[in-house]
Amino acid sequence: MAERITPRSQNYSEWYISIVTEAKLADYSPVKGCMVIRPRGYALWERMQAVLDGMFKETGHCNAYFPLFIPESFIRKEAEHIEGFSPELAVVTHAGGEELEEPLVVRPTSETIIWSMYKKWIQSYRDLPILINQWANVLRWEKRTRLFLRTSEFLWQEGHTAHATEEEAQEETLKMLEIYRRFAEDWLAMPVLTGVKSQSEKFAGAVNTYAIEAMMQDKKALQAGTTHNLGQNFARAFDVSFQDKEGKQSLVWATSWGVSTRLIGALIMTHSDDKGLVVPPRIAPTQIVVIPIFKNQNKEAVLSYAEKLTASLKSSFRVEYDADDSSSPGWKFAEWELLGVPLRVETGPRDMEAGTAVLVRRDTGEKITASCEEIPAKAADLLEEIQKNLYERALAFRKANTVSITSYGELAAFFNDTEGGFAESPWCGEGECEAKIKNDTKATIRVLSFGNEQKTSGNCLACGKEARHTAVFARSY
Amino acid sequence: MAERITPRSQNYSEWYISIVTEAKLADYSPVKGCMVIRPRGYALWERMQAVLDGMFKETGHCNAYFPLFIPESFIRKEAEHIEGFSPELAVVTHAGGEELEEPLVVRPTSETIIWSMYKKWIQSYRDLPILINQWANVLRWEKRTRLFLRTSEFLWQEGHTAHATEEEAQEETLKMLEIYRRFAEDWLAMPVLTGVKSQSEKFAGAVNTYAIEAMMQDKKALQAGTTHNLGQNFARAFDVSFQDKEGKQSLVWATSWGVSTRLIGALIMTHSDDKGLVVPPRIAPTQIVVIPIFKNQNKEAVLSYAEKLTASLKSSFRVEYDADDSSSPGWKFAEWELLGVPLRVETGPRDMEAGTAVLVRRDTGEKITASCEEIPAKAADLLEEIQKNLYERALAFRKANTVSITSYGELAAFFNDTEGGFAESPWCGEGECEAKIKNDTKATIRVLSFGNEQKTSGNCLACGKEARHTAVFARSY
Repeated sequence: MAERITPRSQNYSEWYISIVTEAKLADYSPVKGCMVIRPRGYALWERMQAVLDGMFKETGHCNAYFPLFIPESFIRKEAEHIEGFSPELAVVTHAGGEELEEPLVVRPTSETIIWSMYKKWIQSYRDLPILINQWANVLRWEKRTRLFLRTSEFLWQEGHTAHATEEEAQEETLKMLEIYRRFAEDWLAMPVLTGVKSQSEKFAGAVNTYAIEAMMQDKKALQAGTTHNLGQNFARAFDVSFQDKEGKQSLVWATSWGVSTRLIGALIMTHSDDKGLVVPPRIAPTQIVVIPIFKNQNKEAVLSYAEKLTASLKSSFRVEYDADDSSSPGWKFAEWELLGVPLRVETGPRDMEAGTAVLVRRDTGEKITASCEEIPAKAADLLEEIQKNLYERALAFRKANTVSITSYGELAAFFNDTEGGFAESPWCGEGECEAKIKNDTKATIRVLSFGNEQKTSGNCLACGKEARHTAVFARSY
Repeated sequence: MAERITPRSQNYSEWYISIVTEAKLADYSPVKGCMVIRPRGYALWERMQAVLDGMFKETGHCNAYFPLFIPESFIRKEAEHIEGFSPELAVVTHAGGEELEEPLVVRPTSETIIWSMYKKWIQSYRDLPILINQWANVLRWEKRTRLFLRTSEFLWQEGHTAHATEEEAQEETLKMLEIYRRFAEDWLAMPVLTGVKSQSEKFAGAVNTYAIEAMMQDKKALQAGTTHNLGQNFARAFDVSFQDKEGKQSLVWATSWGVSTRLIGALIMTHSDDKGLVVPPRIAPTQIVVIPIFKNQNKEAVLSYAEKLTASLKSSFRVEYDADDSSSPGWKFAEWELLGVPLRVETGPRDMEAGTAVLVRRDTGEKITASCEEIPAKAADLLEEIQKNLYERALAFRKANTVSITSYGELAAFFNDTEGGFAESPWCGEGECEAKIKNDTKATIRVLSFGNEQKTSGNCLACGKEARHTAVFARSY
């Protein structure tokens, strides 16, 4: 089995792609840059959707649906927005057998179509806030794609909120960032840095963009979610004002925020190993697989024993049962390891006689024998431990690969002569220095971490002037 | 409030649209033919999705996701398929700033892209069956649109299954039709006829199409879901064969099946009245609204009483609580009736003193006083009764408007001189007679009802030859 997965040490990119395809998470489609999300990959997305959707609803948001198509003229209304998205647009020019009067772009994001509707829905402060989220497909034409990480079409959620005050919009922007952080850390077991983006890295049309950034196993950064304070930019572009309590007309304040199927790529690259996929138990579509080990002479008895065991687990866990007799136990163990199921329960004739079964952890390979009665409680403990271990392992990895660098030569050497990682360095805040660093090292500012945004000790390592921020530099996906 | 809803007797079409817009279910978008599904409409869709998704998974199906775009050449591979869908296609000709080598159509349905992948995934009988469903948006360019009922973009689910035998495919086709029937009748309280479509009304590319058909309040038929036995048509077009147990290569057998956001339109037109939306309790996003009635001097006490009552309902029901003090109780009653919440709980100072509250049924307007302790049980009973009553009312309406007609003159008079309904009539099975009837009456064959497909008594009312079917004729949406 192992040979189906390229080892990380041999070729990290191929390792990633071999996991995606061999674990049947996604496949290449005949449409350039577009992927097919296969049932095992989609089940991961469904779990992510369910958890996030619950978190959004708990915080007062509701779902809605806006058109796939956006009139080209709408995209042009916000100057930075069109500049950012123009190279990535797919354009419908013909429909119903006729050429369209105005071309329609396939949404790359929905700010413009949504704010054209908010204009219709918002008159007074009584109509605010609007807290809407949309689960949808979006399209950003890409030349170089990679399954889940960068595809022309992807699935995501996009929140679009409208507020009466600047403070409220900022509060929403940070609240959703915190939800993304909690989701990444508590559910995906993926530690993330949170903070604000530099102006050159922000969303096209935002005042400020905030992000969660994770470190992958090749020490590159992956932006896993963003929230944007859009200020009044879209309200201005679409002329959306409201009458406040005093009867005064004011422009509405906006936020937007999103995570996408890219999270599946992030999950894979955070935890998986050379045996295949590793999935944290809380997000795993299947938490436990039960595999009976039998020969012809004891088949019936072992299956009956294993089925009872499976039944005792089904009320508390998401369980699969693999009694297929066309492949060997060893082959099945490797297959379920490749598929990333966190806990395997093996049970053969000797276990049956002893009234036990063997639990095998996907993360460490550790084997634990327990009696049937103990197994549900033991499994619950182990799944919790695996969840915790995966998080701590990833956190330790990030810490081990995060360095504080104050000299330009050291920074260049870190990225050009070693495998790199996260470099925390003093930065003056100027785009010129940021561009110079990017040019020399291919590293960009991932975030100005919270708590460090205004840290002023030290001097910018690029220009030597007084530093305004401690920035986290990394090469990224 | 009532004046916001056009009475059915005055203008049925306007009544429908006024409910959709005033109950804030959907809105017109700036993109021709595309709608915005607003939070209250989308919440209905989410409930429908949750129930249907559960039914699909119980029967062994899983979800996946395929690309939005389909190469134009794929659509052309199945002759009937391209003929049927060609007039409705939206075409992307440019992307990423360049003209595409091959135009991409926005999926009108996904048989072709999915079968191009099944070719990759199916080699042996071990790979079968494949039981995949997709929740997605699709695009069929329409000249004349109506919110939910016919829009260029709509949301739906599309099941696409692959089988080793013809029998298995036929079994799947009927199994999913039965799931749609159960969903329509048990959840939407919408009685439906089930049966097979005539060849002229079948899906472009199917061997046979089966449908659930409901009667709306204007006595027109609405096709609410379809399942297709696709035979080997798509396997042939995409060259998908498998090696059976004996080592022989055979073409794969296929089905597809779908329901869409059109169901929301069907739901509205089945149950609603001149006060607004009526939603069956089992599918209602909000089942109960609690409205405290208070004046300044007793506000605090009444609110505390009503909040306790609300809390006692929340564990068992989907509840909203409306303590807004900027509008009168009467205005609020009418508003929540318009929004279609099945059960209203009113409680004022007198109720508080008596330890009671008043329950008001949305379907009948009946008021029931009950003590606080009784209310959760009483509400459960009433919601069940409302569900049952809505179904029975709709069924009685359909029965009262279904007639058996055996003469051509009578059939013409039924559709041309009266409001029509469903006519059960003997038909020879020839497309010519079907076309003549459609031309003279605007009525089409909705289904050949099960049990009646091969009924041979009587003569075709169009040509007088021996009848092979009893067909249900109606004008339709």
